[in-house]
Amino acid sequence: MAADNAADHSAGRAARELARLSEERVDHRFKGLPPDAEGLTVGELAAQRRNLFTDGFTTPVLALSAERLEHNLALMETYSERHGLAFAPHGKTSMAPQLFARQMERGAWGITLAVPHQVRVARAFGVERIFLANELVDASALRWIAGELDADPSFRFICYVDSVPGVALMDAALREANATRPVDVVVELGAGDGARTGVRTEAECVEIANAVAAADTLRLVGVAGYEGEVPEATPERVRAWLERLTALAVDFDKANRFADLDEVVVSAGGSAWFDAVADVFAQIPELSVPVLKLLRSGAYVSHDDGHYRHLTPFNRVPDEGALHPAFRLWAQVVSRPTPEQAFTNAGKRDAAYDIDLPEAQVVHRGGVDRPATGVTVTGLSDQHGWVRTTPEADLAVGDWVGMGLSHPCTSFDKWQLIPLVEGDGTVTDYIRTYF
Amino acid sequence: MAADNAADHSAGRAARELARLSEERVDHRFKGLPPDAEGLTVGELAAQRRNLFTDGFTTPVLALSAERLEHNLALMETYSERHGLAFAPHGKTSMAPQLFARQMERGAWGITLAVPHQVRVARAFGVERIFLANELVDASALRWIAGELDADPSFRFICYVDSVPGVALMDAALREANATRPVDVVVELGAGDGARTGVRTEAECVEIANAVAAADTLRLVGVAGYEGEVPEATPERVRAWLERLTALAVDFDKANRFADLDEVVVSAGGSAWFDAVADVFAQIPELSVPVLKLLRSGAYVSHDDGHYRHLTPFNRVPDEGALHPAFRLWAQVVSRPTPEQAFTNAGKRDAAYDIDLPEAQVVHRGGVDRPATGVTVTGLSDQHGWVRTTPEADLAVGDWVGMGLSHPCTSFDKWQLIPLVEGDGTVTDYIRTYF
Repeated sequence: MAADNAADHSAGRAARELARLSEERVDHRFKGLPPDAEGLTVGELAAQRRNLFTDGFTTPVLALSAERLEHNLALMETYSERHGLAFAPHGKTSMAPQLFARQMERGAWGITLAVPHQVRVARAFGVERIFLANELVDASALRWIAGELDADPSFRFICYVDSVPGVALMDAALREANATRPVDVVVELGAGDGARTGVRTEAECVEIANAVAAADTLRLVGVAGYEGEVPEATPERVRAWLERLTALAVDFDKANRFADLDEVVVSAGGSAWFDAVADVFAQIPELSVPVLKLLRSGAYVSHDDGHYRHLTPFNRVPDEGALHPAFRLWAQVVSRPTPEQAFTNAGKRDAAYDIDLPEAQVVHRGGVDRPATGVTVTGLSDQHGWVRTTPEADLAVGDWVGMGLSHPCTSFDKWQLIPLVEGDGTVTDYIRTYF
Repeated sequence: MAADNAADHSAGRAARELARLSEERVDHRFKGLPPDAEGLTVGELAAQRRNLFTDGFTTPVLALSAERLEHNLALMETYSERHGLAFAPHGKTSMAPQLFARQMERGAWGITLAVPHQVRVARAFGVERIFLANELVDASALRWIAGELDADPSFRFICYVDSVPGVALMDAALREANATRPVDVVVELGAGDGARTGVRTEAECVEIANAVAAADTLRLVGVAGYEGEVPEATPERVRAWLERLTALAVDFDKANRFADLDEVVVSAGGSAWFDAVADVFAQIPELSVPVLKLLRSGAYVSHDDGHYRHLTPFNRVPDEGALHPAFRLWAQVVSRPTPEQAFTNAGKRDAAYDIDLPEAQVVHRGGVDRPATGVTVTGLSDQHGWVRTTPEADLAVGDWVGMGLSHPCTSFDKWQLIPLVEGDGTVTDYIRTYF
């Protein structure tokens, strides 16, 4: 009953905090929004159903396609269900509680996050199951986690461990915090030599599991890792590593490490190899307790016009669908100093630039979109986009250039309130992010 | 009298809005801050004078040195005064109204900005003189600017023009907005072939000045540009371009283009060549009206441990002082999978990475800082720092690594509330940014 009440309380908090987002004032904090909307609430502005091109929005402005977002949310729900996977989409991509809520409505088990600050955001919006795909040895953060677990029996929290010293630091911090519930941990298996975090050998995994077993403050609930860091990844190498991961789960199960659990967690899966994850996880033999096969892809929400366009597994399994790039960054041409050069007002503050530059796709002038033929973004300053034009380009000062972006994680994080835009330009909502 | 009242009103607004920052609640919106400070106001938390290392802050956390900030603010005030320059520090660097206010207290003429959204932030905090170092042809933004000028006679706003079509767009938008005061513009002289925005030839500058003269909604008040974009810059090339800029001002003056003004604006100066700007601007001959020689450097506020450490003019004029790097990013080692590798919890969301990677400087363990010997940051994922260690490195899971950053503009923009930290670790205030 206590757990039920806490869960109800948490669901109530989620609904209340999401509703409160629509009561936030539109003001100078949020770039791109119409200056003449100053003082309206987000909800009031959304109710006006303004047009992105004609109703006072200023450039640069990032637009998230309502239809494409919906498509992507639905596709990954279907994909996960079809493959018998639980889904904890990586929330670090968007850090948008409204999107977390839509992911949960579409059947997500919970939300994956990367650092404790992100857990605080999710908890503030009532997320009940959080998978922290990272090590956590910060005493202050662990004290806060212990408090959350204590206050809300229905809060499920899982994080990585990959070292005996890390286990000792966790245990010390949780003891110091007088933690009343153990923190659930999974041993992270590293994706190979030179890869990111994670234990390098199965022998070390055993040592760490032993250390966890010896700590009252921790509970071993499974194994996990990130195949996206497999060195020189090929489908074969990724599968080989995933098979190591699932074999580790089997070995731990045989060693009776999961005897007291209701379920074992086996987790992997970024946005580049979830087909391999689905295949290998489907082969996990029956263990002594049910297995929660947890996929963690995050970039699918907005998808992109670059990095993940090339890497998405749907390129290999087109029969299962296709994600649609949902972001378009609109910038205005402010300068056209030569026939070969143009400059927009969107720079590093506005567009992802860590993997690829923005891709000029359309030019908007006088209410009409046309292809951005001969228009190429060649660089970004802090607040300018450098554009090269060929003789066939028709690009003038004042034109809006619509650009595709590469890498959702470094696109979302440059915008705190993102217009959700329908195909005809109507803005129906605003997505708040917390970075 | 109306102008005086408006100025008083604006100063009152500035003080009120700055005070309101200390009333903001510390919560999940602001990463790095102590979870147990949830619900306190910023002012209450500051009054607790917590220690960055021992009082509950979580990693990653960006610290701004109180003493170094103060030193840098004072140094550029002195520098500007010594060289007879007015100073409009570029606010796009920090987008922190508290720092704008301190810059103004230290004699700044006003604040430089890059895009209209930034102007809205500055206006919300009562900044009375704004130099927009960019072209502005967005009708919605111009309508808002016209409203601000109309409502506050003491608001001074200047922006660039670099094309006849741009002038036409401005004029049309301001007419449509029924602007009551003309918008002050300066002709931007481009820094050379292939450089960023700005007119390429003096002949075109004349055409544009003529277009401005023909538009009732605009007033030509001077010339400007950005020597930081001089191609293959050397001191000689930068000076040659600055001499073109000042000669353009002289030519315009001879052509009686400034006859109706109280002062002419001549502006240049980023953070790499302000010594050349000072030298060349000192040679401007007497014009028919006084000249406001406006320097716009912005990166000096925090300075850095990379890009501007190499580029600062103080390397050439050491007798005039030295800026001090004021940022230190603290991250925690969460994983140490091999003797050669370590991983921190600070990634692309936390550190500038557009020019250089963070520089590991110190390791903090058990209350003691020591040099980060043998510790090198080799890459950043979204939420991880990749660290390589040599055999001489003493680095363990749980250690905090203090890092210097390169490029202030892409450091500030990853943090919304930045602890201002004294040398002993006491946090005395929190700097709010708006990106």
